Amino acid sequence: MALARLKAAFPWIQTPLVVGAPMRLIATVPLTIEICRAGGIGFLGAGSDTSTLESDLRTIHAQFIERPPPNASSLATNTLPIGVGFLNWGANLEAAVSAVSKFPPAAVWFFAPRSTNDLIVWTTKIREATAGRTQIWVQVGTVTNAVEVTRACRPEFLVVQGTDAGGHGLQQGASIIPLLPEVSDAISILEVPEEEKPILVAAGGIMEGRGAAAALTLGAQGVVLGTRFLASHEANIADGYRNEVLRASDGGKTTMRTSVYDRLRGTTDWPPGYNARGVLNRSWTDAENGMDWEENKKLYEDSVRMGDKGWGLEGRMTTYAGTGVGLVKEVKKAGEIVEEVRSGAREILQRAARSLA
Amino acid sequence: MALARLKAAFPWIQTPLVVGAPMRLIATVPLTIEICRAGGIGFLGAGSDTSTLESDLRTIHAQFIERPPPNASSLATNTLPIGVGFLNWGANLEAAVSAVSKFPPAAVWFFAPRSTNDLIVWTTKIREATAGRTQIWVQVGTVTNAVEVTRACRPEFLVVQGTDAGGHGLQQGASIIPLLPEVSDAISILEVPEEEKPILVAAGGIMEGRGAAAALTLGAQGVVLGTRFLASHEANIADGYRNEVLRASDGGKTTMRTSVYDRLRGTTDWPPGYNARGVLNRSWTDAENGMDWEENKKLYEDSVRMGDKGWGLEGRMTTYAGTGVGLVKEVKKAGEIVEEVRSGAREILQRAARSLA
Repeated sequence: MALARLKAAFPWIQTPLVVGAPMRLIATVPLTIEICRAGGIGFLGAGSDTSTLESDLRTIHAQFIERPPPNASSLATNTLPIGVGFLNWGANLEAAVSAVSKFPPAAVWFFAPRSTNDLIVWTTKIREATAGRTQIWVQVGTVTNAVEVTRACRPEFLVVQGTDAGGHGLQQGASIIPLLPEVSDAISILEVPEEEKPILVAAGGIMEGRGAAAALTLGAQGVVLGTRFLASHEANIADGYRNEVLRASDGGKTTMRTSVYDRLRGTTDWPPGYNARGVLNRSWTDAENGMDWEENKKLYEDSVRMGDKGWGLEGRMTTYAGTGVGLVKEVKKAGEIVEEVRSGAREILQRAARSLA
Repeated sequence: MALARLKAAFPWIQTPLVVGAPMRLIATVPLTIEICRAGGIGFLGAGSDTSTLESDLRTIHAQFIERPPPNASSLATNTLPIGVGFLNWGANLEAAVSAVSKFPPAAVWFFAPRSTNDLIVWTTKIREATAGRTQIWVQVGTVTNAVEVTRACRPEFLVVQGTDAGGHGLQQGASIIPLLPEVSDAISILEVPEEEKPILVAAGGIMEGRGAAAALTLGAQGVVLGTRFLASHEANIADGYRNEVLRASDGGKTTMRTSVYDRLRGTTDWPPGYNARGVLNRSWTDAENGMDWEENKKLYEDSVRMGDKGWGLEGRMTTYAGTGVGLVKEVKKAGEIVEEVRSGAREILQRAARSLA
């Protein structure tokens, strides 16, 4: 049934569903479009800044008119075959509503509101603006929050993020190994009609077919990749950042959830309880060793002027990435990544089932 | 091929392989035996104390003579159909060698040596003592360590532990979602003959069929459960502890990797880099709020005298448990847990493969 709902809402997708995370500044128009053309769902990373959203959606609309995605003929939902991700604590609601009412995306993804009440307002306003055509996805990181959000907003989807994820997420958490099954069980007993229960999508540490197959066995109907798409041709990313993603390995040891990078970058207005995972570098080591904060910040600002050379183990530029960063070995086209993950997951599940038969 | 090696070394097992973690003080003779009788591998938690090991092995030997495990007739390896877990930093090597030479177990599990050199000594001595009949399992938590240990000791098995695990493990790490695939890839390219490469077994956050199925897709040939067996009839555990395991939920939020509990309990001789995951309680909150350490310790000692009432959210007794604690809902026989996980994993993988066919 979940599969039928997926196909109805996103007629262009192929399964298992592969989703591109709405990475702020990185998941811009090209990455979003290429993921969708390959039968995935690319989320445009509007984030906390809606200033270019309307023009971005206009561009996407024009590009799809020029070259429609494979199953465009079945776009019965009359929406743009993409998603848009918002950081609710910072995004401007009026601008968001205005843009999506002109170009309704197939889905919006909400993350990190200041309160559940804010999330209710966003959900209501977006549903009004698109006459319910746009599916509401809400990212959660705990069982408690999954239940609370489902009761309050009745989203069509929950993005269940485990603590392996790169970039922003909860300071403290579990991986999807226990989190997805527990969320799934908690939702299954909720007093909500079966057909209105959210579909679960998994995020955090998924890099390729194996992680994707695992997420599907844990109860997800689709998988979200962020870090992996940093090494795609279509990502809007500095070479220095991308090279560091390719270099780093053993991410459990070489990445950390920390607020150091946010503080250096001046990104200090996230709600309490969040921080971000990044590859450890010189800024982090210096902070750990007690370097005066103003000095660390000054050194960071110097490194910004170095461009691509500012990244690396001895560098100071931030490399947000997940614990699976060591599984990212080469730069590929985003569409190839989508196809590889999808066929990889399929093959692994079929092989595993055969080996137990 | 891995499957053939598994079956040759442990002829009584059924697949997918379910393993009971060598939980110190908890995985004693009854739990170890029951897991093996159900076709899993139970590891006796010798830990850092070998004083009762020989008598425990003698008891197990006698019990198996009285009532052999199902496939006893095929016990061609001439070993006790169980495993024994050692904490190398604290266990007495001579006592261990003496005991296992009298009653060679099918496997030993090494964890947390003070150095790789110590691990080499343990591996060599145990192999000598049992003429190579006992399979060497080594627990690792990073890709780097997996490669190092494989090169140095050529263990037959690596237990790859993700950060969701309860009790002791690395302070910092990844979950098995990215860790297992990356370890698997790193081992696959090592300059070691194919048939001597270690078989991978997964630990950390696996509670039931879903997590087990996920681990198998990630590259594991078997799954280790610790927290789940706390709620078995055969675990040697206080009622207060077990009740707290049944009560706790949403473990990403309600458990933490910390050294607070070790310090309170006086378990301070672990090598650097390790701590332990437990359910948050009053001791932890007080420590977090800056309570004087001597006072916190005194309150802890008072709670020890309260017995089972010392556990709980407002209690101070330690509840070591993994992030998946919320998936543990009832006390079962250990053998039923083994069977449930095994058939659950099988069913989930077959269903997932069918849904993608």
